[in-house]
Amino acid sequence: MSRTAISPIHTIQDELKALFDDRITLNPGVCNNHGRGEGPMASLPPDAVVFPITTTEVSVLAKLCNKARVPIIPFGVGTSLEGHVAAPQGGVCVDFAQMNNVLAVNTNDMDAVVQPGVTRKQLNSYIRDTGLFFPVDPGADASIGGMTATRASGTSTVRYGSMKDNVIALEVVMADGSIIKTASRARKSAAGYDLTHLMIGSEGTLGIITEITVKLHGIPEAVVAAACPFPTIDKAVKCVITAIQMGIPMARMELLDETSMAAVNAYSKLDYTVAPTLFLEFEGSPNSVKEQVETLINIAQDLGANDFQWADKPEDRSRLWAARHDMYYAGLAYRPGSESLTTDVCVPISNLAQSIHQTHNTLAASSITGLILGHVGDGNYHTLLLFDPNDPEQNTEAQRINKTIVEQALALDGTCTGEHGVGMGKRHYLKQELGKGAVAMMTNIKQSLDPNNILNPEKIISLNEMGKDQR
Amino acid sequence: MSRTAISPIHTIQDELKALFDDRITLNPGVCNNHGRGEGPMASLPPDAVVFPITTTEVSVLAKLCNKARVPIIPFGVGTSLEGHVAAPQGGVCVDFAQMNNVLAVNTNDMDAVVQPGVTRKQLNSYIRDTGLFFPVDPGADASIGGMTATRASGTSTVRYGSMKDNVIALEVVMADGSIIKTASRARKSAAGYDLTHLMIGSEGTLGIITEITVKLHGIPEAVVAAACPFPTIDKAVKCVITAIQMGIPMARMELLDETSMAAVNAYSKLDYTVAPTLFLEFEGSPNSVKEQVETLINIAQDLGANDFQWADKPEDRSRLWAARHDMYYAGLAYRPGSESLTTDVCVPISNLAQSIHQTHNTLAASSITGLILGHVGDGNYHTLLLFDPNDPEQNTEAQRINKTIVEQALALDGTCTGEHGVGMGKRHYLKQELGKGAVAMMTNIKQSLDPNNILNPEKIISLNEMGKDQR
Repeated sequence: MSRTAISPIHTIQDELKALFDDRITLNPGVCNNHGRGEGPMASLPPDAVVFPITTTEVSVLAKLCNKARVPIIPFGVGTSLEGHVAAPQGGVCVDFAQMNNVLAVNTNDMDAVVQPGVTRKQLNSYIRDTGLFFPVDPGADASIGGMTATRASGTSTVRYGSMKDNVIALEVVMADGSIIKTASRARKSAAGYDLTHLMIGSEGTLGIITEITVKLHGIPEAVVAAACPFPTIDKAVKCVITAIQMGIPMARMELLDETSMAAVNAYSKLDYTVAPTLFLEFEGSPNSVKEQVETLINIAQDLGANDFQWADKPEDRSRLWAARHDMYYAGLAYRPGSESLTTDVCVPISNLAQSIHQTHNTLAASSITGLILGHVGDGNYHTLLLFDPNDPEQNTEAQRINKTIVEQALALDGTCTGEHGVGMGKRHYLKQELGKGAVAMMTNIKQSLDPNNILNPEKIISLNEMGKDQR
Repeated sequence: MSRTAISPIHTIQDELKALFDDRITLNPGVCNNHGRGEGPMASLPPDAVVFPITTTEVSVLAKLCNKARVPIIPFGVGTSLEGHVAAPQGGVCVDFAQMNNVLAVNTNDMDAVVQPGVTRKQLNSYIRDTGLFFPVDPGADASIGGMTATRASGTSTVRYGSMKDNVIALEVVMADGSIIKTASRARKSAAGYDLTHLMIGSEGTLGIITEITVKLHGIPEAVVAAACPFPTIDKAVKCVITAIQMGIPMARMELLDETSMAAVNAYSKLDYTVAPTLFLEFEGSPNSVKEQVETLINIAQDLGANDFQWADKPEDRSRLWAARHDMYYAGLAYRPGSESLTTDVCVPISNLAQSIHQTHNTLAASSITGLILGHVGDGNYHTLLLFDPNDPEQNTEAQRINKTIVEQALALDGTCTGEHGVGMGKRHYLKQELGKGAVAMMTNIKQSLDPNNILNPEKIISLNEMGKDQR
């Protein structure tokens, strides 16, 4: 993509330097590193990177940039996949690395107030002695600001929900520099429009998140993990549906397909059966876990699955889960030199087996290798589409398959993105998924809250493409 | 309140009659009944009431009203408490009594798609044979459309969440008549702004909800209810906090204060100990319930509470819960001829005991009788402020106490409304709770989505009061 506007950053360069002193850089290398996340997209660097330490600084920055029409792109740790941190119109990247303090931990209320640069592992390490933990786990050690902005979720979402379910309140700097509190710290409220949820998943396009109040949960007394191969994907999915319907409060339910298991074995020198495999976790009181495990074994056995591997000690569980957590790298290693275009569809769980079948069929008819892994308890799965970045035809083919997978999932009443967000990569699917009216409504909201389009422009909605169909 | 504008309904009267035929009425009695909910406010009747049967009709209606600047006020069953259905500027009330079909029940996905007029009891009766149920229980047999619009919750929210946690997707008619789908039926999504949550709790001011996809849950195998008096409110609240922190998945946790228990005894001819009392419910597998009960008994005994009454058979549980459910009527009967101004504050649970103390002190210094009951697991409680509707001084005093309770709760990081909504009654507290910036943001959103201010005007935000401080 070429830049659609030249950022007039030079008009405020002196003021920025006065404001941030040695916490601003225009170094091309640093800017380049801030212009891309972990997806396969090329970097679109900002003109400058600043490192604020207070909300007030962010507010002053917004006022400056709003007046001068300079884009602002918030940046956590850069692990997003859909071009969320790209700066297609240049501008100022706001790196929250130095706003990384845990501001309060309220153990009785089971909540914590953090700055956006705090990562999920940092928070969990900070609160280790309280008996509480923060559950949302997207794999990467993402910043909580970034996870909020992209409505992230992960392996524990089937039990604890996504960021949408674990954020109580936000402080947000709006485009005009005003500082907003979206909600009180009370656990529930019916006080007007739900500004908290409007900001969660808005990807920095409506406001800049400067403080997050998150829910914490009690560390369970007992945890048991298991891996079990199934004769078919259908039977693995059936096991998941039955477990949920029977009310087993599963902590994690992850599926890896045959190819993924082959990749995992090769990468980690393991000898798992090469078959569709469920990775499961149970938690609760020791008795409750025992009961959950027994029920799950009965369900699985009825579906022809018997070969459980169990792990209850922390180190054994870590080893068992390593297979799942290393999947991305195992995938890349499966086709050396490849990059991954990672799909993220989510469908109603009753359509999940069909969706995965369709994807398998699409992959079988393609030259591209694809590995399927998923948060099957949520109906969400990823396909790692491995392509050679130096081969334009493979790149095109990966894009085509992604499109097919998305369109088939939409036809099954699903979404193009379960958890990665829209960014620039999925923008053109929004209208297809939700219709013209919903996108027009999003555009109205964007324009009313950011009339000069300075907040992370070109993400979720492209105002440059208004009036014509998005790709 | 006097009307701030004369509704030009006569300009579209012929078109409305052509559209709705015998499903429109201008009968003053019917209009008057539609101009108030269950709160103590006088009726502000609409000019007409229509009974649509399709989304298309609602869409055509919106187009007509938008062009003619005629207000539209959506109406479920009229059980809201904060003047949500009042028509201060006249206009057309849209009564959803005839849009009350369950459109789909997807048992494998554990969801249902309903029209807005379906009530929660109607839905639960419809799905009785599926082994699933819809959990949100605000007491009244409210319509699911109304519950969505007010972000309702209730006694089961500590376990199952509020409407915010139980709505998957919505169909909404916007002010210009366009029909919006807010989300797919997938369980999670990161596809753009969270339009679903923007609509939940928007009280008909941003769009008219015409279809709701709700989550269903498995009916638990075993359920046990209990009531137990505590030596003090503090100890009852401490019991609640400890139970939650220990991860007991409580199904319900309700507190009635001494005066409430006296009122309940008198109304229902019972002989409960007149002391702060917790009403509890446990559910799960029989073993899990047994374990939960044992843990809870230990916590309660440490706090000096021993006198549990238990109920496990459905009819016994109904009898036990009747005391809690009849509370509103027991309260009114406690001061015959009185009406109730019902407060709805919610605070972080660590501040709950203090908030209730402050309220008790306020009541002790007042001529008004107040009864406290609450969803203490959420930090949310109500005070029934009983006043003689024919005594203007008592009315003023009830308003004054309400204001004190709200302001004290806000100082404890709470909200003016945990679940009843803003309507017209709590509008003037919004700025105090969230600040000028947040209310300005809500106003921006309102104006961008409903530029002619036809959708339930004067609720949540008063555009007539723009530019000056709300009361």
